[in-house]
Amino acid sequence: MSTYQHYLPALKWISREYRDLNSSHYKTLENPPSALEFSRIVLVSRPVLVKSSHLDANKDLWTDEYLAEKMNTRIAHPMLLYSFADAIAVGPDGAEYFVEPHVEMLTMPELLNRLNGQDGSNENTEAFYLQSQNGNLYSSEDFEGGKSPSEFDVLRQDVPADISWFSAALGRHPDAVNLWIGNSGSTTSIHSDPYENLYHVVRGEKYFTLLPPTEGWCLKERVYPHAAYIRDEVTGKLIIKPSLSDNTPTVRWSSISDPNIPGAFDEEPHRINITVRAGETLYLPAGWWHYVQQSEETTIALNWWYDIEMQGASWVMLGLFRGAGELPAMTAE
Amino acid sequence: MSTYQHYLPALKWISREYRDLNSSHYKTLENPPSALEFSRIVLVSRPVLVKSSHLDANKDLWTDEYLAEKMNTRIAHPMLLYSFADAIAVGPDGAEYFVEPHVEMLTMPELLNRLNGQDGSNENTEAFYLQSQNGNLYSSEDFEGGKSPSEFDVLRQDVPADISWFSAALGRHPDAVNLWIGNSGSTTSIHSDPYENLYHVVRGEKYFTLLPPTEGWCLKERVYPHAAYIRDEVTGKLIIKPSLSDNTPTVRWSSISDPNIPGAFDEEPHRINITVRAGETLYLPAGWWHYVQQSEETTIALNWWYDIEMQGASWVMLGLFRGAGELPAMTAE
Repeated sequence: MSTYQHYLPALKWISREYRDLNSSHYKTLENPPSALEFSRIVLVSRPVLVKSSHLDANKDLWTDEYLAEKMNTRIAHPMLLYSFADAIAVGPDGAEYFVEPHVEMLTMPELLNRLNGQDGSNENTEAFYLQSQNGNLYSSEDFEGGKSPSEFDVLRQDVPADISWFSAALGRHPDAVNLWIGNSGSTTSIHSDPYENLYHVVRGEKYFTLLPPTEGWCLKERVYPHAAYIRDEVTGKLIIKPSLSDNTPTVRWSSISDPNIPGAFDEEPHRINITVRAGETLYLPAGWWHYVQQSEETTIALNWWYDIEMQGASWVMLGLFRGAGELPAMTAE
Repeated sequence: MSTYQHYLPALKWISREYRDLNSSHYKTLENPPSALEFSRIVLVSRPVLVKSSHLDANKDLWTDEYLAEKMNTRIAHPMLLYSFADAIAVGPDGAEYFVEPHVEMLTMPELLNRLNGQDGSNENTEAFYLQSQNGNLYSSEDFEGGKSPSEFDVLRQDVPADISWFSAALGRHPDAVNLWIGNSGSTTSIHSDPYENLYHVVRGEKYFTLLPPTEGWCLKERVYPHAAYIRDEVTGKLIIKPSLSDNTPTVRWSSISDPNIPGAFDEEPHRINITVRAGETLYLPAGWWHYVQQSEETTIALNWWYDIEMQGASWVMLGLFRGAGELPAMTAE
């Protein structure tokens, strides 16, 4: 019996109790909550959808033309990433890898043209997703007095650095504010982040499949060797190239490729499916597992990540739910 | 291996991680926090001492004379309880029991005289503790439109039903507000309550030994048969009488009689010792284990119990920490 299996009786008990106690209903608010109302939501740590967030960055302002004009004049190379990446895929040797995206440098007009299928790229199966996760709009450095300029700074005037009710409830500034641009070609594989997350859709729709942290054991995380997509010099097609260096760390990732396929789980987990439409904002509590799909049209979103509280038991419990730091056996279930 | 033991690896891992992550430092505030500040404290779920709470019920107002006058005119029989009760003790057959207090009906002047040793009772070992826990000052019924009158209603003018910042942070009224009067003769055996608790000392001092919910497994709860103190008709002394009826439920209680004795625990738990002096208020988070001693002088306290949030994972986790509903074996460790 592996060490991990020592924790399984408790992990299974917790997830089953959680399912018994909580329905898959989620709360919807017409308008943003007050800081105090939101603090009670954080305490419950369940997703909430806010219908109207009144952000300047909205679908009427952020047209293709506006974005292209804004970013083409100031920058040359927004970072563009190939998907389905940051996910598990079978490499050339038949083994499974955690595969990082291939990165291409495009201007904003080039990206938008590709997403709209106006460059003929729809004929191949490549998907494009702008998803630099390092706080491309704002990062903690912005609140600490200085940050090197970013290509995305020109969009800041439309995006608040702080979401006032979120920051006031947590008593801190965001750690990172990001812009995401893609379409149905790219899907985010199921994973969880140790951050409180506010996710706002500017254009298009996002389809979230959410599982609470207590379902961690159902996600069957495994340790995968690392690989990356590269463009084959001969065919021009994207291929998976294993990272053979001993220095490349392995990656712990869920082995569930699509949580919505019937039979994906050995037992049905607690799950919440939420569609977030343009103008809507999702509170995605820390540690919740999320699998995210996007609408066919160009889908633009913003998110604010806030550090979670390290004092108390929350951090400890998130660790337990992911197997108390132990890795499950790589062998059969 | 008992079912309980299946949960032990996880329970031990959690408590050790909690100890690593949290120091035994506790936060002290000079004045009550705002509702929003307090909501962040509830999220961390660690004790906080508030130095000044500005309650009308204070040591200058609540003298013996005042209390005696207030309550003697209106009532005949405040409930008075013998301690060390609500604790484990050895019965006449040599077995351990959970022993409920003997209840005597005294007027407030009689109680205060006994606590002050002015009735000669210091010569025997009987301890007196006024501790009706059913919301003797206010209960949830008060907020729902009606409650039968209580002997303690005359003290309500000095005690707010709601603590505004506490109620606003939790978004609810208290479930019970209680008055406690005792002295060093009575000690509260270590236990935990599934309530958020605000504990205010009016006169004297209370000495809290606090352990987080994550230390539940260290408390070695066991299932005890029930007994009660009764007064022996011949000697007049208090003796333990086992409840022999099959209908009397057994009681799950910690087998640690004094957590401050060196070697009380197999391994040193996370603990916080806090002295709460007259005028000070302790936030005692839900599920925290507490062992409480009192100063020699007459010690008067108030507490506000608030229901905890049932949605989310908090309730589930408190259940896990107490052994996932399984009872540990009654046999040797």
